[in-house]
Amino acid sequence: MTEEKHQTVDIFGKKKSVLITNVVADAKPVDIFIDASETITDIGHDIRKRHRGEAEFIIDGDGALALPGLANTHTHAAMSLLRGYADDMVLQDWLSQKIWPLEAHLTADDVYWGTKLACLEMIRTGTTAFNDMYFFMESAAKAVDESGIRALLCYGFIDLGDAAKREHECKATEDLVAHIKKLKNPRIRAAAGPHAPYTVSPEGLKWCAEFAKSEDIPLHIHLSETEKEVNDCVAQHGKRPAALLDACGVLTPKTIAAHGCWLDDGECALLGKRGVSVSHNPASNMKLATHRALPYQTLAAAGANVCLGTDGCASNNNLDMFEEMKIAALLQKFFWNDPTVLPAPAALAMATANGAKALGFGTGTLAAGAPADLILVSARTACNTPLHNAASNLVYACSGAAVETTICAGRVLMLDREIPGEHAVLAGAADAAKDLVKRAQDA
Amino acid sequence: MTEEKHQTVDIFGKKKSVLITNVVADAKPVDIFIDASETITDIGHDIRKRHRGEAEFIIDGDGALALPGLANTHTHAAMSLLRGYADDMVLQDWLSQKIWPLEAHLTADDVYWGTKLACLEMIRTGTTAFNDMYFFMESAAKAVDESGIRALLCYGFIDLGDAAKREHECKATEDLVAHIKKLKNPRIRAAAGPHAPYTVSPEGLKWCAEFAKSEDIPLHIHLSETEKEVNDCVAQHGKRPAALLDACGVLTPKTIAAHGCWLDDGECALLGKRGVSVSHNPASNMKLATHRALPYQTLAAAGANVCLGTDGCASNNNLDMFEEMKIAALLQKFFWNDPTVLPAPAALAMATANGAKALGFGTGTLAAGAPADLILVSARTACNTPLHNAASNLVYACSGAAVETTICAGRVLMLDREIPGEHAVLAGAADAAKDLVKRAQDA
Repeated sequence: MTEEKHQTVDIFGKKKSVLITNVVADAKPVDIFIDASETITDIGHDIRKRHRGEAEFIIDGDGALALPGLANTHTHAAMSLLRGYADDMVLQDWLSQKIWPLEAHLTADDVYWGTKLACLEMIRTGTTAFNDMYFFMESAAKAVDESGIRALLCYGFIDLGDAAKREHECKATEDLVAHIKKLKNPRIRAAAGPHAPYTVSPEGLKWCAEFAKSEDIPLHIHLSETEKEVNDCVAQHGKRPAALLDACGVLTPKTIAAHGCWLDDGECALLGKRGVSVSHNPASNMKLATHRALPYQTLAAAGANVCLGTDGCASNNNLDMFEEMKIAALLQKFFWNDPTVLPAPAALAMATANGAKALGFGTGTLAAGAPADLILVSARTACNTPLHNAASNLVYACSGAAVETTICAGRVLMLDREIPGEHAVLAGAADAAKDLVKRAQDA
Repeated sequence: MTEEKHQTVDIFGKKKSVLITNVVADAKPVDIFIDASETITDIGHDIRKRHRGEAEFIIDGDGALALPGLANTHTHAAMSLLRGYADDMVLQDWLSQKIWPLEAHLTADDVYWGTKLACLEMIRTGTTAFNDMYFFMESAAKAVDESGIRALLCYGFIDLGDAAKREHECKATEDLVAHIKKLKNPRIRAAAGPHAPYTVSPEGLKWCAEFAKSEDIPLHIHLSETEKEVNDCVAQHGKRPAALLDACGVLTPKTIAAHGCWLDDGECALLGKRGVSVSHNPASNMKLATHRALPYQTLAAAGANVCLGTDGCASNNNLDMFEEMKIAALLQKFFWNDPTVLPAPAALAMATANGAKALGFGTGTLAAGAPADLILVSARTACNTPLHNAASNLVYACSGAAVETTICAGRVLMLDREIPGEHAVLAGAADAAKDLVKRAQDA
């Protein structure tokens, strides 16, 4: 019966009721039933008996580990087109000689294809929601809409202290928020996106904070990635970056601050007090040699919501949150010189519950009534053999390649590693990237 | 024609001539022909015309990146049974409370199944040769023989300064070397395996060095993983570990020293002068918080052969050399505070040519006359889209899951991600691990 249903109904992207049998969640064997309302209707041991009749589609989990879809809380999705374009360079050279000159030629179409590629990679590696900052975000929204996953999208607001620029960035921010509201797609939400304390004036930061408050939307910002920006901030403003942001009203429970490598104890306490989400981006930080790791323990103890992000593909160079969990756990142990820091369950929480809390879609748990955003990780694979401890295997042994099925908002997006239309996305993105480089070289 | 041959001949593990068309090696489109002699007979652009008639099997590479099979230069393969058994603990507690008590119950059968699982994982992630140190190595040899890949195997010699123990360890070493010689399997070679300067007396180290020299075999040892062992060595012997090893005759071009986190400049110069291979194990070092990274640049500049290893699955917790390349490149940049350290091509060389040089099987290049040990990495995957730079994608974007075909000594071991007998190995290893834990708990 299972196999018959599995093979005869076209399920991809459809709003259909789905019964998932024989999976393991929180170390317990369960079945999961999703009706057409996009939420988990029922989850528990052997509930298949109750729902087999009403399910339009049955997935035999074959012992897979069921997890909430992962949340990537800091990326620049369309930078997937720049994957491998430039590496192994000093940050400023990398930006000024390679990344910025190429980005100057980016079109809305490029951002569409880059975001399509990023969403494809996220579906394949088990991420169902992400937090994005970039340009041409209407195109990003279109790609996200088509992909079936969730995203919090913001325009990267940069005024460099220039009033005319600021006016333009305010308008761009307002336009994107209005555009996303009009889409009325519950999977796509807008945020304000002041780029960073070193690229946005206090006036700009204040405007973003007030705008986010008035629109009741999150705010996404880079914070203290490098030591230099902290020193510059103190020299220019007489206070450290977190204090500057707080003075501008930026720090709220709806704020997601990325990187946080150089936060000191006082800043950690402040971020905790304000209930800010801090996105740890360990692979990017290591690749660009920030030379200090996010103070995870201090932030967590202070009550900040510490979550996880990959950053963009130019500085990672992938969007695999499984790999990011491992690198986070390794970096925290290594840098803070204590192998007990960030144990596997905490790393898993960063990528699931904490990340979901930051993004605000209500995802991040497997429970009746929760959004049906979930993934199945194969148990029939070397990384889950033996299975002494699921959290350990998920964080330390598996990569995103162990994900076999991805469901977002009740829709099946990948089933047994099949994603419809994958080849067209890969080909479209490859063409866009090639053309982008050619335009930059011809200029 | 391609598809017909591809589907009608049972190729797995067989000694047959194989033509691989349409792959990319060193950024050039090539075909590769392997005859039944276990070597690459021909490689070049469009050579398919010359060999199509004589090939018993044709693999359409579909644009895949062809690489030499990767070399994992430090592991304890059978510890795959301990994957996820204990993590996030202080090194000494982890060893004394978890790892050693479990290892005390290990049987030859466990080592067989653990090594089978490890070889399966290596084949899947593109590793075709590894350097192993553990117990019950006759069982490891049996597993390697059956798997089809190559290994350099040694018995972990530990005398703790005790003469009676030493005698036992010498005998165990001699027995393993004699056993492996008798196998007459060119894929399996023996090494001497003095565990480390802090677990083997100078007399034991000297015996191993002399034995390795008399047998003309490599020597595999742990070196300067933790700061404590360096300090203890200086206190006990009046010299740093590398100097102690040199005084015992251990440092030769056939020596593979693992970890090397705490090597100082003088030791790097000495290892370079002696032509030693040093195996970098970044994931394990980070997970166990060694707090210092191998001095890659100093070692490489001194002329040491710096290669790469995963260490065992209890401290990693997988055997994916793609992941290890990335973590190596990230750790080197981060710890040495310079994003230009260990660029992608150098990380790739550590896992291919350098690793192959350390192991001594003559593998590590794709050239006519070289052993036919090679892997095909899919180009039709997000991690290779776009393909601005193959080395960058291989190191920073891809995991071992991008490997679709693995060939060792001319035998196809994985084809289009299929490995015959995979489920039996996973099940056997899972059972062995469960039983091992049960025996330890019942004891």
